[in-house]
Amino acid sequence: MRFEKPVSLDTIAKLIGAEIAGDGHALATGINEIHKVEEGDLVFVDHPKYYDQCIHSAASYIIINKRTEFPEGKALLIVEEPFEAYQTIVDHFRPFSPSMKMLSDSASIGKGTVILPNAYIGNHVQIGDRCIIHPNVTIMDHCIIGNDVIIQAGTVIGSDAFYYNKKTNRDIHYKKMKSCGRVVIENAVEIGAGCTIDRGVSGDTLIGAGTKMDNMVHIGHDTVIGKNCLFAAQVGIAGATTIEDNVILWGQVGVSKTLTIGKDAIVLAQSGVPSSLVGGKTYFGYPAEDASMKRRELVWIKRIPELWKKVMEKKE
Amino acid sequence: MRFEKPVSLDTIAKLIGAEIAGDGHALATGINEIHKVEEGDLVFVDHPKYYDQCIHSAASYIIINKRTEFPEGKALLIVEEPFEAYQTIVDHFRPFSPSMKMLSDSASIGKGTVILPNAYIGNHVQIGDRCIIHPNVTIMDHCIIGNDVIIQAGTVIGSDAFYYNKKTNRDIHYKKMKSCGRVVIENAVEIGAGCTIDRGVSGDTLIGAGTKMDNMVHIGHDTVIGKNCLFAAQVGIAGATTIEDNVILWGQVGVSKTLTIGKDAIVLAQSGVPSSLVGGKTYFGYPAEDASMKRRELVWIKRIPELWKKVMEKKE
Amino acid sequence: MRFEKPVSLDTIAKLIGAEIAGDGHALATGINEIHKVEEGDLVFVDHPKYYDQCIHSAASYIIINKRTEFPEGKALLIVEEPFEAYQTIVDHFRPFSPSMKMLSDSASIGKGTVILPNAYIGNHVQIGDRCIIHPNVTIMDHCIIGNDVIIQAGTVIGSDAFYYNKKTNRDIHYKKMKSCGRVVIENAVEIGAGCTIDRGVSGDTLIGAGTKMDNMVHIGHDTVIGKNCLFAAQVGIAGATTIEDNVILWGQVGVSKTLTIGKDAIVLAQSGVPSSLVGGKTYFGYPAEDASMKRRELVWIKRIPELWKKVMEKKE
Repeated sequence: MRFEKPVSLDTIAKLIGAEIAGDGHALATGINEIHKVEEGDLVFVDHPKYYDQCIHSAASYIIINKRTEFPEGKALLIVEEPFEAYQTIVDHFRPFSPSMKMLSDSASIGKGTVILPNAYIGNHVQIGDRCIIHPNVTIMDHCIIGNDVIIQAGTVIGSDAFYYNKKTNRDIHYKKMKSCGRVVIENAVEIGAGCTIDRGVSGDTLIGAGTKMDNMVHIGHDTVIGKNCLFAAQVGIAGATTIEDNVILWGQVGVSKTLTIGKDAIVLAQSGVPSSLVGGKTYFGYPAEDASMKRRELVWIKRIPELWKKVMEKKE
Repeated sequence: MRFEKPVSLDTIAKLIGAEIAGDGHALATGINEIHKVEEGDLVFVDHPKYYDQCIHSAASYIIINKRTEFPEGKALLIVEEPFEAYQTIVDHFRPFSPSMKMLSDSASIGKGTVILPNAYIGNHVQIGDRCIIHPNVTIMDHCIIGNDVIIQAGTVIGSDAFYYNKKTNRDIHYKKMKSCGRVVIENAVEIGAGCTIDRGVSGDTLIGAGTKMDNMVHIGHDTVIGKNCLFAAQVGIAGATTIEDNVILWGQVGVSKTLTIGKDAIVLAQSGVPSSLVGGKTYFGYPAEDASMKRRELVWIKRIPELWKKVMEKKE
Repeated sequence: MRFEKPVSLDTIAKLIGAEIAGDGHALATGINEIHKVEEGDLVFVDHPKYYDQCIHSAASYIIINKRTEFPEGKALLIVEEPFEAYQTIVDHFRPFSPSMKMLSDSASIGKGTVILPNAYIGNHVQIGDRCIIHPNVTIMDHCIIGNDVIIQAGTVIGSDAFYYNKKTNRDIHYKKMKSCGRVVIENAVEIGAGCTIDRGVSGDTLIGAGTKMDNMVHIGHDTVIGKNCLFAAQVGIAGATTIEDNVILWGQVGVSKTLTIGKDAIVLAQSGVPSSLVGGKTYFGYPAEDASMKRRELVWIKRIPELWKKVMEKKE
């Protein structure tokens, strides 16, 4: 999440009750969780195991629960509870104050766009020209929709990420990480009925231009979908994954988190993708592998009884 | 799609800027895409590979991009862009002009039918007697619902088909084929919460009398479901498929497009159906095969290590 | 379902036109279907095959279609159509008379709870403190929601069970069993967008405190979910199943009905669970089995061609 304008570390430190190690006049331009950080960002870390990764990430300012060494030009904000501090900053700069109108006052709607009855358009939503938003669609705060986009009935854009901080030593088992990211949908995208597209935890979930989705497709937080992809019904893609251009996923395919499916790949129906796939090939099965190889496997399985018989014959 | 009354080829030709080969006084009674054509229909074809199939289909009038031979009694409408011409005709005879009311003025609702708050009922929708339409249901234009039908919350009836024309040589990669068909739901059907049933591209998606669906079932465009079927939760059926009477599909089953599942067939949970199945049997797995055979396969797989050991022993 | 106050058998007998065998002054405290009966309950049975099971269940009063022997302290209500009699009682004590307002007059909403536009809150719904109910959510009659619960957009709580009585000798093939149970959601539960949670047929569907669900999760009727479970997107759980505390189900997992998954079990993505699983282990595949064993099976399948070659070599 970008701040509307840069904020000094001193201001942040006061907000979260932190001690500063480094230059308090330095300016933070945003806050992100570790998978999405850029220069100028605040980030948080609360486990010594991840200190190093965080301090040497692109992030400039680290909210941390212990004073430690850090590279020149960066700074630490030391607090007891970095996770709580992160939530406090998110709440402060992007408070949850939902619109109680069906079409919020701060939404902007382009020319020729039709919004059917019962669609909810949240605060600061931007919708481009010539779009059709069907009945009972929900578009939550801050989402951005391009031109010539069709969103069919019952679909939800910008639901919160399924992203929790495990707190095994507390009363609370899982603590929700507040989603302050957005969903950004480019031009000429079409989204079927009953789909759900989660916003980024701190970054953007992106749907590339010209991509078409059938009904009941689920896209997780911070996932980036390329241009001109086709997803058939009931496909599910987990969080922080990258699907490159022209990828085709047939019905009920499941894709795991933080992986990449390369350009022009095709994944056949009901397949499961637990790890990255190179582009330009056709995949099938669980785990999804080269489709022709996987089909041969099915044939080999059918030959086991024959093989058994051969071995038994020779035993005699 | 049937026209409200027959339309002369001359009128159509003027609308789309076509040259006529054949009798301009001939009357077209409807327009359909190639999977659904009947006598009196207009159809379009834009690829020489499909010329023959189209010209010799049941359709009477072919919108085509090249003058070619055609059987007596038929006629050609020659235009540069048959696909665009098809869209123009659909737009003209079934324009998208959605109702901006929750219950449209042109909808007809039977006796004893209850429509709960927040349900959207589009233009020309007909709903029979003693139905219950739950909150947040969406029923799009022209859909027909019989008597004693229950549609649970959040379900969408009549979403657009997932059907695109690939345009690889253009800026636009996939061009939406406008859905002008309907969803027709017969008597005593019950549809769970969060389901999506797509309208036909040009024909009807049909749900036969007495069929019951659990939650989150997806039915593709132009698919025809028989009577007294049972579909458990999260079943997905692609477009233009035929499911005969009394078929039972258990949870998360996926069924591919343009195939047939015969009467009284049972498909067990999570199975995938890539091709037609004969009726009266129980199926399982991917690809769905005779369930008892498939179960034996699972047992055979578990015996591979034993087989390996036997072979290795003999090697020594 | 509990009655608001106990009802005499004489009253019930008059309502359904039954003959009583036993004490007409006895008081029934509720009515349930056979999977959920307790002492004081009415239950029905219409097939001789199940007479014994019903008469010796915890239920006190049996609606039955034949006079038969029964234990002391119990009673029979003899009618020709026990199933119809059950429906009559349900209709009488819990009639379907839905609220026609978005927020019903009989709903109670706790302090600090935010209900966004377009959410439907039915009769007698209770929602605790500090909850967020997102747009286009549907919460049907009698459901109970604890404190600090988040329900994301488009989700349906309290849809009817997918539960039918097969009537093969009638015009009607499947007869709906009316759902008079509830959904009870405990504190700090979070439910994603586009989920569906069915009410119990006669008992409660229960979601334990601290449990978190991603989008498009389906929970069947009368299913009991423990505390602090995590369900990823597109998980489906059938009816009357028990999921114990801390169970993790990854994306697209399917779980069959009336089984138990033990505490701390993990079921990996796309797996199918047709029968009970003991707690504390990780499972994978269909049918879901010990994950490391199942992974070895995948390796063994890949070795079949090698095995075939070895056997063929020795033949020569």
